Parts: sequence; C-alpha cells; structure tokens
Amino acid sequence: MLPLQLQPESHVPLYIQLRDQLKALVHGGDLRPGDRIPASRELALQLGVHRTTVANAYAELESEGLIQGHVGRGTFIRGNGHTLNFSPPAPPGLGTRSGLQWQSLFADERGDDALSRLMAGEDDHVLSFVMARPAEKFFPVEDFCVCVNAALRRESSAILQFGPSDGYPPFKAALLELLRRDGIAAKDENLLVTSGCQQALDLLRKVFLRPGDAVILENPAYPGAIASFGGARVRCLGVPVKTHTEPGGTLGLDLEETEATLATNRVKLIVLTPDFHNPTGTSMPLASRRKLLELASRYQVPVVEDHIYARLELGGEPLPSLKQLDRDNLVIQIDSFSKVAFPGLRVGWIVAAAPVIERLRFMKQTSDLHTDQLAQAALAEFLRRGMLTRHLAHMRKVYASRLAAMHEALQKYMPEGVRWTRPDGGMCLWLELPPGFDASEFLIHLRERGVLFAPGRHFYVQNPQPNTLRLAFPWLDEKHIVKGIATFAALLREEMRKRGRGARKSEHANVAFV
Amino acid sequence: MLPLQLQPESHVPLYIQLRDQLKALVHGGDLRPGDRIPASRELALQLGVHRTTVANAYAELESEGLIQGHVGRGTFIRGNGHTLNFSPPAPPGLGTRSGLQWQSLFADERGDDALSRLMAGEDDHVLSFVMARPAEKFFPVEDFCVCVNAALRRESSAILQFGPSDGYPPFKAALLELLRRDGIAAKDENLLVTSGCQQALDLLRKVFLRPGDAVILENPAYPGAIASFGGARVRCLGVPVKTHTEPGGTLGLDLEETEATLATNRVKLIVLTPDFHNPTGTSMPLASRRKLLELASRYQVPVVEDHIYARLELGGEPLPSLKQLDRDNLVIQIDSFSKVAFPGLRVGWIVAAAPVIERLRFMKQTSDLHTDQLAQAALAEFLRRGMLTRHLAHMRKVYASRLAAMHEALQKYMPEGVRWTRPDGGMCLWLELPPGFDASEFLIHLRERGVLFAPGRHFYVQNPQPNTLRLAFPWLDEKHIVKGIATFAALLREEMRKRGRGARKSEHANVAFV
Repeated sequence: MLPLQLQPESHVPLYIQLRDQLKALVHGGDLRPGDRIPASRELALQLGVHRTTVANAYAELESEGLIQGHVGRGTFIRGNGHTLNFSPPAPPGLGTRSGLQWQSLFADERGDDALSRLMAGEDDHVLSFVMARPAEKFFPVEDFCVCVNAALRRESSAILQFGPSDGYPPFKAALLELLRRDGIAAKDENLLVTSGCQQALDLLRKVFLRPGDAVILENPAYPGAIASFGGARVRCLGVPVKTHTEPGGTLGLDLEETEATLATNRVKLIVLTPDFHNPTGTSMPLASRRKLLELASRYQVPVVEDHIYARLELGGEPLPSLKQLDRDNLVIQIDSFSKVAFPGLRVGWIVAAAPVIERLRFMKQTSDLHTDQLAQAALAEFLRRGMLTRHLAHMRKVYASRLAAMHEALQKYMPEGVRWTRPDGGMCLWLELPPGFDASEFLIHLRERGVLFAPGRHFYVQNPQPNTLRLAFPWLDEKHIVKGIATFAALLREEMRKRGRGARKSEHANVAFV
Repeated sequence: MLPLQLQPESHVPLYIQLRDQLKALVHGGDLRPGDRIPASRELALQLGVHRTTVANAYAELESEGLIQGHVGRGTFIRGNGHTLNFSPPAPPGLGTRSGLQWQSLFADERGDDALSRLMAGEDDHVLSFVMARPAEKFFPVEDFCVCVNAALRRESSAILQFGPSDGYPPFKAALLELLRRDGIAAKDENLLVTSGCQQALDLLRKVFLRPGDAVILENPAYPGAIASFGGARVRCLGVPVKTHTEPGGTLGLDLEETEATLATNRVKLIVLTPDFHNPTGTSMPLASRRKLLELASRYQVPVVEDHIYARLELGGEPLPSLKQLDRDNLVIQIDSFSKVAFPGLRVGWIVAAAPVIERLRFMKQTSDLHTDQLAQAALAEFLRRGMLTRHLAHMRKVYASRLAAMHEALQKYMPEGVRWTRPDGGMCLWLELPPGFDASEFLIHLRERGVLFAPGRHFYVQNPQPNTLRLAFPWLDEKHIVKGIATFAALLREEMRKRGRGARKSEHANVAFV
C-alpha cells in the first residue's frame, strides 16, 4: 500500500495533495518507472475520498507525463523520458556521465500548466464553449496596423530603446485619461504597466506574500490566480461565490464567509473579480461592494480587484468598480485589454497607492526590466484615436446578441435539474449538472458529438464541485451556440434517462439483496 | 547610539546590511521622521567599517526617499511622504481612516532599482560612458518597419491572439536556425522565449532556488542578476573575476575560488558571462571554459551562461560558448538581442535540457502567460530576411572602431597607476583608479566637467572596490571618446597632484605629532 496521507482540513485541494504526494514518491524513488499504481477506485477506497479526487490527480500526472494508462493493464509510472536528450554523443571518457538529475534540482516554487488546458485553440469542426477570449475574426487589424505605423514613424527611437520600468510614458498618459473617464483620479505615480494581468498577479504576489501567507480567493476562481499564488506556496483560502440567490441572499463573494475567514486568519490580500466573475459570470451588487470595502478597511487588508471583464457590460447599468468606491485607498486594481482587444500583446496595468506602485516598480524592473514598448506605443495610439471605444461598442453588440442566444437556448433545451447563471456581461456563464453528474466524464461523451466546455474542476481553490462547468460564448455565433446547447442538452437527457434506469435497477438489486 | 550590528562574514554586502537595518529601525518606529542620523564618518567609526560602506548605505536610502541630507545640518529621516496620496477627500464618517500602512504589509522579497541608475538616458551635452546598450541612431528602423508590416499582413490573427507559453512558433523556428549556426543542435523542446534576459534570470531563480539557497555569481557581476537573486533572499556567493593576468594566471572567473566555493557550499547554480563580461569586459579562455564545465559536472551544479554580449566580438577569434562545449547538458544558456538590436522589445530566450524548459514553461505561463507576440513575429522576420546578420556586421565595425579609440586614448592620456582591461568585444571595459581613490567621489567632480561613467560599486556582490569603474563605449563616437577620456585623465592628474601634496603634508603632520 502506498504511503499516502491526505489532509481534508487543508486549504490545498485533495487532488493536488494526492498529485504532489505521488510525485514525491516518484522523485524519492519509492515509485519507479514501470511500477503499476492502484486503479482510481481502489485508491479512493483506501484513502476514503471520492473517486473523482483520484481521477483528477491521475489526470494531472498524466498531463505532466509522469504516468501512463495502458488499456486493460492499468496505470504505470512512465520511463524516464524526462532526462536529458539533446547532448551530442559523448566522446570516450565522458560516456559514463549521465548529466544532471534535474527533477532533484528544482525548488518547490513551481508554475502550473493549468492555463494551457483553457487556452489551447480548437479545430473548426468543434463547437467550443471553452475559450473566454476574443475571437480573431473581430480583431480590428487594419486600425491596429495604422497605429503601429503611426507610432513607429513618430517615435521609433523611443519605442525600440530601453524604457522606464513603470511603463512607456505616452501609454501611461493614455491610460490615465481612460481611468479618468472610469471615474478614477489616478496620477502617474499610481500606475504601473505590466505584461498582462497574469504578471500583475505575479508582481503582487512577490511584493505582498511569503510562502505560508494566506490570501482570500473566490471559489471557484481564475485558474491563473490559483496557479500564481498556490505555485508559490501561498495558502489560498477559497470563499464561496454565490451563483444563485436564495430569498434575501446576494450574488457574488459570500461576505459572511469572507468575514469569518478574515476573523480567523491573518489574511494578507483579498483577490476578487467583482464584475462578470470568471468562471461564474456573477457580479457583486453595489451594497456588497461597499460591505466588502468596509470589511477590508476594518481588517486592514488590501483588496486586489480584477477589472478585466468590467468593460464588457452587455445590458443593464454598469456598477461602480471597487476602485471607484475606494475612499481608503486600499484597492489595487488590475486590468488589461486582453478580453477586449489583442490578447497576444500582453499589456496590462495596476492602479494603486503610490508606495505600492513604487515597490511594484522595483519588482517589475527586477523581473523583466519593463513591458514591450512597441505594444504599448501601438495601444496608446489605439486609445488616443478613439479606436478602442469604437471597437468596444461593436464587440458589446456582438457579445450581447450571443449572450442572448445562450440564455434562450439554455432555457429552451435544458432538462429540469440543470441550473445556470444569468450574467449581464463578460464572456461566460456557469452551469450545474444535476447532482451526481461529473462534468469531466460528461465532457468525454460530449466531445464525441463535437461540443466542448471547460469542466468546473479547473477553477476550484478547494472543494471542487464535479457537476459544474463553464460555458464561454465569445467564440461561437448565434447559430452555433444554439446547435451546441441543443447537442449538450440532448446528450444530458440521454444520460439522465440511463441513470434513471440505473437507479431503478439498483433499487431492485437492493431489494433483492436485503 | 543606534542598535546596529553588521556581520562581516555574511554574503550580504555590508552596505546592504546597514541599509536594511536602518530601514527596519524606521519601519519599526525606532527612527522617526525628523530624527537626525549620524554622519557617515561617525557611524563608520562606531561600526568599525569603511566610511564608503556607510556612504553607500545612505545613498541607497536617499534614492529610496527614506532619508534626506540638509547642507550644514546633517542627514534626517524623511517625513512620511510614502503614505497614500490619491484618494478623493474622505466623506464625513470615513475621515478618521488613514488608509493602510503599506510598508508594514510588504513581504521581504523585494526588487531593486539598481538598473535605473545604469539605464537612465543622459542629455546630449554630457559625454556618457554609462550606457552599455546600443545607441538609437543605429537602430535599423526601416528594416524593422518592413518586418512588422510583413508579419502583420501575413499572420495578424495568430500574432494578436493568445499563444503558447514557450514562444511564438515562427520565432522559435528562426531562433533554432540561429542556434544551429552557433553550433548548438537544439530542438523546439530545448527552447523557451522570455521577456528578455532579465526575465530568464527571474524564471531560473523561481525554478531552482529557495530563500537561503546559494548561487555563485561573478564578483563584480551584472546588477540585474544581483538584484534578481539577492532580492529573493538567495545567498549570492561572489567569486572574483580576474581582470589582469599575473604570470601563469588567466582572465575571467577565478576557478580556484570557484572550486573552493563549490567544495564548501551546497551551490545550486553557477551564473556567469564567459564572453565580454559585464562590467569588466573580460572573456574566459578556452581552457578555463573546459575546466569550469568539468567542475560543474563533478559537483553536479547547473551552469547558467549569459550569452548576451557574445555576438559582439570585435576582433580576434570567437571562442566556443559553454553551451557548445557542454557534453553533459548541464549548461542553461540565456540570450537576447537587447545588446545587438532593439532593447525596447523585451525578447530573450533560454536554451536548456528539455525537462528544464518544461518546468520553465510552467513558470513562464504562471508569471505572464507568454511573451508579446508582435515583437517575436517582427524579430522572426528580421532573422529570416538576414537583416540581423547584416545589422550585426555593421555594428561590429562601428564598435570595433570605438573600442580602438578607447584603447588608444586610455594609453595616451591615463597617468601611471591607472589600469584597465583590454576586451576584444562587448560594450565596456573596467578601469581601476590608483589605490585610495573612490570612483563615486571622483564622478562628482568629473560630472562637473561633463563626463560620466558607472562607478564600480553598483556591480559588486560583496567587497566592493571603491577605486573601480566601468567605461562603456557604444554611445560615443571616436572624437567624443577621445575628448571624454582626455577630460577624465586631466582631472585625475589634478586629483593625484592634490593627493600627492596632501600625502606630503600629512607626512609632515605625522612627523610633527610623533
């Protein structure tokens, strides 16, 4: 029996604990290439956990190439394909050296491949609800080329030379104007340009957190945030996001749980997405925003507001951002145009109090000197010429129509027992299959019918709910949305019928055995 | 008397220890705004250290805005200009809240502003030997614009969409071809694109090092490396770089010291610049390269080879890189075009064994998803069209002539007692003033005559030699180089004469007192 010990009370998800303990056994030599590991059902029984936990851990290990399943034979530790493989043939006398054992040299801070699973492109024959990012066909390429050339003609020397770590000055000026229109009176000293929101999280993590420190994240949350904090051994305390209102309740981050977590932990940061939260699509009502700021002020905890989806309001009244409501200057807002315009450019920014920006600037300089200036200069031009405003207006129309098609199709096709969120913007909604369904398993069958979604388990900090999933709508037009949802619903009805029969059968079986 | 305690045996430079202890006193409230701190001479006596150590610590604190000198009155802790300063006026009822005490919320991993001091542009009336980077007037802007437009015309969708974390595929293909011509048979799995060499260091630090781990750096070294590792509380063990050969000795990293350091410390990485080392300009001879690899293999320590200056060989035979000589696959080569072409683009790369690249890819994804793709696409085009080769040939001619002018002017003007390195390439050389001179003090006077250089103290891991300085030559043409060196030498002769008189006077004084 494998020496495994999971801690259910830990904030590290069980499948991550299991994955890492299995890896440690491999790296420690307790498990060797060719060793068979227990079937997931068997190991789940041994550990007293749900089989999905083990399946998830195995899926992770398989995607990292550490284990491999062989049909009919079981799952095995893989041969060491991870050793060195591009040195030229060793000359005589050096032939006995086998290079370094890299796995034993790596430190325990580690990144994560989580986002590849959500970012990979798909072929055209598949109806994919996976990608929460703008579709290429809408990129305003001609406008963009005009901007690139205008900037290069005017200021190529400044663009192509080293620049300041806090950002390319003309881009900062254009951003400050954008922020002013957002109702935020920031100055140059309150703004730092980053290589996208992901780097904003990385820099904030470096500036504020040590291993073992605690942050509050939404549960579920953006996987890049979980990877950034969790990978650096920060304790991620997931606070539930309410996706459905009970009478008297409100959507978004559970504030009672937030307060309880603040009261019982030394929390260093609260990280959340108040507008069109990824993955659930929910937005915090105004009263909740005020209440959250009041809590943060009382406990003296900075709030990191991920503002990346907020410009995609698709109906209804936009709510003030936390930064707009922030009288105590404790909100650190992170943002980028990746969800609005050009994800491949990797340009984002942070708005915060001056001492925070100053510290972040040191960290940015030490991390990568500064962000690419050609992209910054082109985006500055794009802002100044009003092209962003125009493009955004166009995209809002496109997305509003697709979101409406989603709502309609879900309403029309989904069987009873399924529920989903009803966002007014952003790029995705959150769907719960009937209890007992596992979205990952369901996806295996749905993929055969040419439809894809992102299983909910990729988004959880802890307590993954296997019946959840994310449906993103920017990638498909209305016709394909309807077709995709209809296909989804049809398969789900079939599976529910099978389960219905199965349940009846097992009732019979129980009767027979009792 | 201030409660300060320096540890001379520590690998943290004394002035850094002092700086950080003084900061801790400020943050802890032992020193308050308006408090006077001792004069550097006085504190140096108290602590038993050189006055320069205290002066350096004070210079750091002043550049961070924590202390301020007032002529004739002394040096004082500054008023808390660091608190929050852009919240709108607080409404009644919230007015008593003063926001967060940010300094107390920051973790101890910190970046550094070290590079700003070396990167800041200078006005045209100054002869600056500070900048070790290409001058804007040589940027091949027209070629670059052709490349940007060709890439955007052909593949704008791919460029502007999210892409793979290991790099934009056409750029990786062009780099692999460049590496092949460098004599390195790398495959796609051996290559990761980064946002410049600085990010390469950051990613390697995250993958290989924990706080308290030890790395070998050259002493002196690239300040960005010291900032990256030191800022994350990695122990930086500086091994001297030999800048002048004694009979039987060799230039470059001291290999006896390297071996002694490896034998007495659990070293996790050796980081060095074998070609045209920044700041000294020295290159390791072939035998030393082989010997270093032999040591690394014996002690099983990966070697990080900074290859950024290697393409700038300006005469003589180029030596094989460590990566070319690397039979055991233990060399991790980092590189970029920042010293050759467009520093503002922030594109670099890492060549290493596949398992290292795989781990770095996770870390890259978690750090900033991927590097800007417009810059990668433009550089791919620049490589494919042979424009880099052409540009590099041109720049080699320009720099060779400037370097020759440097050598000649130094030879002609410098007084006896000054020595300097004689590199065959790169961007800088290293000069030692006569013993007893402090380059930082000398710079204050030289600046008044319109000439600038980088004092050596910015480059030291430990034991800074105050009489050293770096002279970079890419920024000035031959005429200005001669003028700058002549001005430098003239002032130095004056100062030496003054000292000569001073020394004679103090001899007299000694005689009088004994």
